[in-house]
Order: sequence, then structure tokens, then C-alpha cells
Amino acid sequence: MTTFDARQTAAADWFRTLRDRICAAFEALEDDLGGDAAPGRFERRTWDRADHTGAPGGGGTMSVMKGRVFEKVGVNISTVHGAFDPEFAKTIPGAAEDPRFFATGISLVAHMVNPHVPAVHMNTRYLVTTKAWFGGGADLNPPIPVEADTADWHAAFKASCDRHDPEYFARFKAWCDEYFFIKHRNVARGQGGIFYDQLASGDWDADFAFTRDVGETFLGIYPELVRRHMHEDWTAEDRARQLAYRGLYTEFNLVYDRGTLFGLKTGGNIDAILMSLPPVATWS
Amino acid sequence: MTTFDARQTAAADWFRTLRDRICAAFEALEDDLGGDAAPGRFERRTWDRADHTGAPGGGGTMSVMKGRVFEKVGVNISTVHGAFDPEFAKTIPGAAEDPRFFATGISLVAHMVNPHVPAVHMNTRYLVTTKAWFGGGADLNPPIPVEADTADWHAAFKASCDRHDPEYFARFKAWCDEYFFIKHRNVARGQGGIFYDQLASGDWDADFAFTRDVGETFLGIYPELVRRHMHEDWTAEDRARQLAYRGLYTEFNLVYDRGTLFGLKTGGNIDAILMSLPPVATWS
Repeated sequence: MTTFDARQTAAADWFRTLRDRICAAFEALEDDLGGDAAPGRFERRTWDRADHTGAPGGGGTMSVMKGRVFEKVGVNISTVHGAFDPEFAKTIPGAAEDPRFFATGISLVAHMVNPHVPAVHMNTRYLVTTKAWFGGGADLNPPIPVEADTADWHAAFKASCDRHDPEYFARFKAWCDEYFFIKHRNVARGQGGIFYDQLASGDWDADFAFTRDVGETFLGIYPELVRRHMHEDWTAEDRARQLAYRGLYTEFNLVYDRGTLFGLKTGGNIDAILMSLPPVATWS
Repeated sequence: MTTFDARQTAAADWFRTLRDRICAAFEALEDDLGGDAAPGRFERRTWDRADHTGAPGGGGTMSVMKGRVFEKVGVNISTVHGAFDPEFAKTIPGAAEDPRFFATGISLVAHMVNPHVPAVHMNTRYLVTTKAWFGGGADLNPPIPVEADTADWHAAFKASCDRHDPEYFARFKAWCDEYFFIKHRNVARGQGGIFYDQLASGDWDADFAFTRDVGETFLGIYPELVRRHMHEDWTAEDRARQLAYRGLYTEFNLVYDRGTLFGLKTGGNIDAILMSLPPVATWS
């Protein structure tokens, strides 16, 4: 039985609590849509991870819902530990000297039924090697962008960042734009948001508070954007735009996404890692 | 105006001729299906390539058909030349010393309407750096495998290989199985075929003859397999299997495929490179 220190436990507890609150908020959206189809409900599946040495290495829980608002949404939490593969360790801060690691986090991707409702991605995590840091972010991925939604999304995260450090928003928004860019197509994946990594300001409590606030901010703004559009009608052409957009989304996740790579390299659960892929996508 | 030597010209001419013959054979399948929908016809689009220095670097022609037998098929030929980006040059045989290169080839991917008709990939190419070699192969990708089809496919390529070298088939079949493997899922992409690279036996004429024979063999066997199944009925469940299979196919192409990487790294035409992606795919 592995024991974790108070910070590791507090972080893992937060991600689990956040998962519960997000799932409840999303199920409420399913209820509020109305209509003849049954409202979606999350189904949970737990997985165990073996470290590359074969020793037990933690695990996670996938929560997946396929509903009438959410075509497919996954909210994963995981708490994993062990030793990185030596080659991979070289690429992770603080792991070259000692490959042991601990990682806990939440990762969420929502692909929506209505093409007017933005898809979304949110992830926050706490990593410990010989160093320790937080990372994460949230980015909005509307197949058919709406200026007011994008403005409100950015305003919410600006307010959130500003509560912690006046420099965070400009830096983390630019980082998001740079990260979620599909180089081979020369287009952004979506409308951006914030992205941060290796956050270790020297004040652990402050960094944890910021990471919690990213989750709270997501909970405040995203369901609001869903409610704004979930009753709108859409055309076959809107649906076609949505599916083509998901093709781009798939390209980003399989070619560039570091979270995907991290999962594949650390023996994560393949279904959990690739849960980000859309239920259906098209290419012209 | 760049001039090519006799071998470069002969190889490029062959790939163009093979393209014409394949397109004609595929259009004949569209005619032979019958039915109310119009038979598909290829549309061609030519693209020019700028070398990474900005100089003209050749180009290619995409031939795409969306029909009643072929849901989406692309047959690309390209003849490109210039200098590799210095970092990329290190990874290509004979290019570390001198980054100049010439490459000509044909690349084909077919995604079929009927889930009982196998999808297919075929590619052959001639590369010149300070070394010169042929490469290519063909692999069968049925969403719903049929043992007799797989056996006939392998038998055709065995006969073809055996005409050139008794060791080719075993080696190139194993290479294909190894290459078209989706490591993160621990499954093969399809039913295999042959794969070869850096073929430079010392007898250029023999290597070129083998590469031509791979094209001839493909032309002999693949339309026959299509004809076997294109009139079969299918169920919604068959279609669902086909779309899920295409999700795997997409994962392979975006995560592992070296041809895709080569194209992205050498400034190839993005539409031509990603033409291999299916028209529609699903993930559970």
C-alpha cells in the first residue's frame, strides 16, 4: 500500500471532488434540455495501472456520458505513481536524477450534440518528481464560433487569473494559443483559453489555490455557454461543420497532444487516454 | 527547370502510368456496380511544392473519387526534389552528408462504401540522396475480414515476390506486419501484405522491375476482391464495425505512419498527405 503525503492527498481529493461537481452540473444540463430522449447519465469505470516494472502503480476512474446534450463527454481522474521508463524520464523535469514520480489530475473532453454548443477541454494536474508542480488549462472548441461566447470565456479566466497573479492571464492565454495550434494545417484548434505547466511559484498553497480556481471557473462559465445554445435549431450544414471540425480536433490530439503522449508513455489506460477522441469525425 | 536522369524519369513515368491504369480500373468498378446513383469519376488537382529554401521543388497530382463503390479513394503521384531540412536529413539514408534529394512515387488509399469490401493502401516510391533505393508495399484493411480474401491477397504478392527473389515474400510480409501495428492498442491495423524499404540490391533494373510488379500485382488482385463483395447487402451493425475500424486506421496514420511524417517534414501538400484519412470514422 503506497501512502501519499498531505499535498498529494489534498490534490487528489480536490480532483475527485471537482469531478463529482462537474458530473452533477452536466447531468443537470441533460435534465434541463427536455425532449423525448432520456437525459444522459454518467457511467463510471475504474482501471488499475501497473508500473513498467510490473508493480502496482495506481489507477483512475473514467466517467463517460452519452446523452442528449453531450454526444460524448469523458471526465477522467487518475492518481498514478511509480518510476518513469528511463528514456522518458529524461524529458520530465526533475526525473533525470530519480525516475520516481507521482501524478494526479482530472481531464475532461466534451463533444456536444448541438453544433452551436462549443466542445470543450479542461485538465488540471499535480506532478511530483524530485520537483513538484501544477499544470493544466481549459480551451473552448466551438465548431461554429460565436464572438460573445469566446469573449465571455476569456473574461472568466482573466478574472480567475487576476485573483492570483496579474501576469498569469496574458502568459497563460498566449501559451494556450501556442500549444493548441495545428502546425501542419496552420490553424488554431479552437478559440483558446489558458494553458499552464510547471507552475511552482515557491508558494505551494497559492499554486494549489490557483489550480482549484481554474476548476471553479470552468464550472461557472462552461455550463452557462451550453445553456445559451443547447435549445437552438441546427441544419445539416451545421452538423457537417461540426464533424469536419472534429476531424481537426482528432488530428491535434493524435499528432501533438502531450497529455496523450504522457499517457501512452507511462502505461496509462488506453481507453481513458483516447477518450478525448470524438464519437464521430469526418475528413473531406 | 530541373532535369532528371534516365532512372528518375523512368520511375516517375511508371508511377504516372500506373496511376492512370488504376484510376481506369476503379472507374470500371463504379460502372459495373449498377444502381441509381451515378458512377463515381476521379477529379484531379495538381499542386506545386516549394523547397524549404523557397526554391521550386516539384509537386504532384491528387486524383480523388467519391463514388458508389469507393466512398473515398485518393491516388496521389508526386515528384519532388530539393534539400532536406538539416535536422530531418540526419534521419534519411545518405542525406546526412548532402541534404539534396529526389523522390517520386504513387500513394493510394481507398475507403469503401460497402463494409464487406476491404479498404486498401498501396504505395511505391523511388528515392535518391547520395544513395538511391525503392520502397513501398500494399496492405489489405477489411473492416470485416474474410479468410479467403486474405489468403488470395497474400498468395498474389507471394507469386509476385517469388518472381524476383525467393526471400522477398517472407521478409516483406513480416516487415508489413511489424510496420502496420498499432502499438498503443496492441492490434494489427489490418490483414497485412508486403512492405519494403531501402531496396537497393545492386541491380537497379531488377529493383525497378520488382517495384513495377508490386503495382501490377495490386492491379490484378484488388479489383477482383472488390468485385467479390461489392454487391453484398450490409447491416447497420456492419457499417458501425466499418466506422470503428476507420477510427483505428486514423490512429495509425496520425500516430505512426512514416509516409505522413515524411510529407509533413518535407513541406508536402497537406491535402495530399492527409487524403489517407477516412471520410468518416467513429470512436466509442
